[in-house]
Order: sequence, then C-alpha cells, then structure tokens
Amino acid sequence: MKTLSIGIDIGGTNSVFGIVDTQGNLLAHDQISTQTYSMFKDYVTEFSRLIKNKLDDFTDYKLVGIGIGAPNGNYKSGTIDFAPNLPWKGQVPVVQSFIDIFKVPVFLTNDAKAAAIGEKIYGGAKNLSDFIVLTLGTGLGAGIFSGGKILYGSDGLAGEFGHLSGTHRDRRCACGREGCWETYVSATGIKRTVFDLLASMPIDSALRRYAFNSLDAKIIAKYANEGDVVAKHAFEITGVMLGEAIADLYSLFSPEAVFLFGGLANAGDLLFKPAEKAAIANAMEIHKSKIKILPSELDNEFAAVLGAAAMTLDSE
Amino acid sequence: MKTLSIGIDIGGTNSVFGIVDTQGNLLAHDQISTQTYSMFKDYVTEFSRLIKNKLDDFTDYKLVGIGIGAPNGNYKSGTIDFAPNLPWKGQVPVVQSFIDIFKVPVFLTNDAKAAAIGEKIYGGAKNLSDFIVLTLGTGLGAGIFSGGKILYGSDGLAGEFGHLSGTHRDRRCACGREGCWETYVSATGIKRTVFDLLASMPIDSALRRYAFNSLDAKIIAKYANEGDVVAKHAFEITGVMLGEAIADLYSLFSPEAVFLFGGLANAGDLLFKPAEKAAIANAMEIHKSKIKILPSELDNEFAAVLGAAAMTLDSE
Repeated sequence: MKTLSIGIDIGGTNSVFGIVDTQGNLLAHDQISTQTYSMFKDYVTEFSRLIKNKLDDFTDYKLVGIGIGAPNGNYKSGTIDFAPNLPWKGQVPVVQSFIDIFKVPVFLTNDAKAAAIGEKIYGGAKNLSDFIVLTLGTGLGAGIFSGGKILYGSDGLAGEFGHLSGTHRDRRCACGREGCWETYVSATGIKRTVFDLLASMPIDSALRRYAFNSLDAKIIAKYANEGDVVAKHAFEITGVMLGEAIADLYSLFSPEAVFLFGGLANAGDLLFKPAEKAAIANAMEIHKSKIKILPSELDNEFAAVLGAAAMTLDSE
Repeated sequence: MKTLSIGIDIGGTNSVFGIVDTQGNLLAHDQISTQTYSMFKDYVTEFSRLIKNKLDDFTDYKLVGIGIGAPNGNYKSGTIDFAPNLPWKGQVPVVQSFIDIFKVPVFLTNDAKAAAIGEKIYGGAKNLSDFIVLTLGTGLGAGIFSGGKILYGSDGLAGEFGHLSGTHRDRRCACGREGCWETYVSATGIKRTVFDLLASMPIDSALRRYAFNSLDAKIIAKYANEGDVVAKHAFEITGVMLGEAIADLYSLFSPEAVFLFGGLANAGDLLFKPAEKAAIANAMEIHKSKIKILPSELDNEFAAVLGAAAMTLDSE
C-alpha cells in the first residue's frame, strides 16, 4: 500500500496542490485560481473536489495528511491571519476546514517555513540540524532550523528575518517600517535598486525600457549577464546586502549552512559571489571560516508544495 | 540527603563560585582573583581546593554537577575559546579539567546563556518556553529560549544578538565590525553616548567631571535622576535603541517576554520607559500588542552563579 501526502501552496494568484509520496516524488498536481473565490467556503469546497478527483486515480493508498503553505499561515492556530494578498479577510480557519472534509491530520505554516521543512525532508538539508532557508521572492522570508527544530515562536509568528533592521536605512518597507532587509534583499528589492540606479546614474541601460511593474529578477539577470552596467551593479548591491544579512544570521544562529530559494536565487554567481564575499567580510571572526551559502536543492516550481507535504512526515 | 550543585562565574577580574540547592538557594560562596593565574592549570587547582574546602562544611549531600558560565564559554566543545578578557590564550579545556578533579558532570556556557537558564529555572521565566534574556554589561549578550530549548547553534556559538546590525551605523564595535547593537545598547554603549553628547552639545553637565574609565551606568543613572540633561538624554537614546532591538527580537522569535539583566537594567524607568515605547513603535503590527519587557528576577550579584548552577538541573 502506497503512503501519500498532499501538499498545498496557497498563493495570491493561484493555489497549487500536489500528491506526493514519502520520497518526495510529485505523483500528480493541479491548481485553481485563488482570486476567483471571494468566499473561503467556496474555495475550499471547489479545491477539495479537485483534490479528490486526482486521488481517485490512485488505488490502494493511505493518505497520511495534508500540509499547507500560505502567506501568514500560522502553524499554532491553524489559521491564515490577515494576509494582505489573499481574497479572504481576518482570520481564516484553514486547518479545520480541510480536516472536516478529508478527516486526516492537516498542518499549516507560512511559505518560508514550508520551504525549510521541504529542504530538510527532501532537499539539501537532510543531514543538518542547524540551517536556514531564505526565500527571495516578493519579500524576504526565512525558515530557521535550530537544534533540529524549526522556530515557530510562542504563537507561530517567529522567523520574520526579512523585517529585521538592515544595514541601509533609506527605504520604507511594505510592512510600514523603515530599513528592513527585504527592502533591498528580495525580488522587489533588486527592482527598487535598479530604479534607484536609473535615477542616480546618467548612463545608458537596457533597463530604461522597462516599467517597474513589467520588470523582474529574471530580466535583470539576463541583462547583467549581457554586461549591462546598471543590471550588474544592482546584483552587486543586492548580493553584498544579502551577505551582510547572512553574517548576522551566523552571529545569531551559527548554522551549518544557509540555503537560498526563489526566483532571485536562480541568478547564480551574479548573486552568490558578492553575497559570499560580503558574508565572510562581515561575519564575526569565529564564523568567517564556516560561511556556507548554497542553492536550494528543491525544484523551484513545486518546492512549496513539496515543503508543505513534508510537514505531514516531519510531525510523525 | 541534600542535592547540591556548584555554579561558577568566571569573570575577567574575579571568579566566583556558589553552592546551590535545587530551589536556587545560595548556601555558600567564595571567590578568587582570575587575573592572578596566568596558567589555567594553577587556576583550576587553587579554585578547586577552595570549592572543596567549602563543600567540607556540608554533611550528607550529593553533588549532582558543576555549571560554569564564562566569556566565550562553548557549551558544545566544553572549552573557553579565545576569550580576550581572560589570562588564558587559545582554547582552554575547562570542562575536562573540572571533571578530572570532581568526577561529576560539568557544563559550560557563556554568561548570557547561563543567565537565561537561571531565569528559566529560578527566575521569572519558570513557566515560559519562548523568552529572551538580554545582558546589558560591557557588551550586549543574549540567551534565547525558543520552544523550550536554549539556542546553541551547530557549534555552541549561537546567540550573539549584540553583534547584529543595529539601526545606527556610526560606531566601530570591539568585535572589529561596525554598527553592532552593543555599540549603543550596553553599559559601555551608554558611556559612548554620554561622551558623544558631551562632544556635540555645549551645555553644562556633571558628567564633564568624569573620565571615560571612571564613568559607569550607575553614575549616569544617578545624575539622570537628579535632572542632568546629558545623562537623561543618554538614557533616552539608549532606551530607544534597546526598544528598536527588542522589536527585531519579536520579529524573529515572537517570544512571550524579554528580560533585562545587568547593571544598566537596574536604572529602571530611565531605561524601560523609552525602550517599551520604541519597541511598540517599531514592532510589526502582529507583535505590537504583545511586547513585554521585564526586569530579571535573579539576584544581580549572584545571578551568573545561579544560572551556571541551573545548568546541572536543566540537563537532567
């Protein structure tokens, strides 16, 4: 008999689910549009129907649980709390809703913690007990394992490293505060850096043809690799700041490795080289020789789904 | 039969030990001058003789272990590693040396972690699983409990919160880096702030009569309470920065409370009021209502000894 888990990645635009075996193989997947459902009740009904349809393709299996990664997903309360990019307001009882339908254990956490659990169960952190996964997306998320356990804090809200005080204090953050690391170190942060450079430097750049909303990390990486000065400089600035942030993470957690995940991390050496150099330069003496920055070993497209599914195994 | 532990606080000037019962009562104590012994071997021989003398006063007891708090004390390796303020260079095999003499379990950690363990076993954090003790001394130390466990990191070197990037980047830290929180938020930090103010403001202050080396937090607090403008302003600046640092700790660890320990914490409202106000102002929305900053409930003079002794109970 096959043991199966379901991993769900609730995103602002789409919600993806996957049926995953204990080795982390994605056996089936599908998705629905999150934005279409203004009522969570309708969303969960329709999404569950879709999942059950896919499960019908399997015979002789045991469903051990459902793991869900979502923005502002709270592990301890089982609710999504006041997520600005989702259509449902206030506190949404996600875990209870899925338990009512599937009658299996259901786990919820935020996207960065799901990615870290995925890295631990299926990825590059299998043998590590102290490591950190940084997710470089719209914001900067962190999933922190210390002593073999992921940090949840007293109420499930721990891990917001992206909102710690950074080394540059000149940008207002989406959270309302000033100087958070994620104002520089994220896919949005590098776009802000590009626009800053286009404003301050009178040199030509292919990036002058892009509106803020049509620019992304992939485009900036493409032009950086082609030699565009602004694009290269933006990666250098972002990488240095990322390295400074990682030096702080070593001071606080003394991890065995830091993994980078998400669109911006795909830029490879453009990001990793300045980050590694700056992390070593800024680390305390006792940490300098230990700095290890690695790309996530999870498949990017379905990492959140795999990470979410891994929660059903991590808790057993 | 009485169950006893020994707590040892190795400081740059003196080393204090205490004989402690399971309720945290200090039954006896004594001390020697650390600086007198340039060889660790001589130090441990003489210090052990002193401890054994005191133990001879007790009859019918069981010694369960020895806990040691020391600057750069490493829990995992059992060594003091390259402590700049101690007379012994390199890595000092502290744990093994005491085991050889006393034949009981011996635990070593740094002073801030010992204070946090003391707060958990004997102090205000008895019923908490997520809390942080900040030690405001020469530097800024942190003992961090998350999910009921103290954070050691992969190699015992975690918890150096005082060396994270602060909100003000204009001071060089003793660690060689720039902008660490402890350049402002520590007993040394407030002295630097006083000297900064004396340099920049052309107003009269009683603090103009003090040399840097003869000034301490207690003197600054005394004059602040008497209305000295520079002293008051220095506490305000230090408190605000402490509050900003605590806001960051809530983002990362979402603790139930933050305890303040050490000479500077004794200043009471002078420090706590601006700190609380700034912590709430700078915390993320989800944390604002939860900020709780408390004075340590450990006796200041022997807290490090009690915390060190508590390690022998925490590990059982």
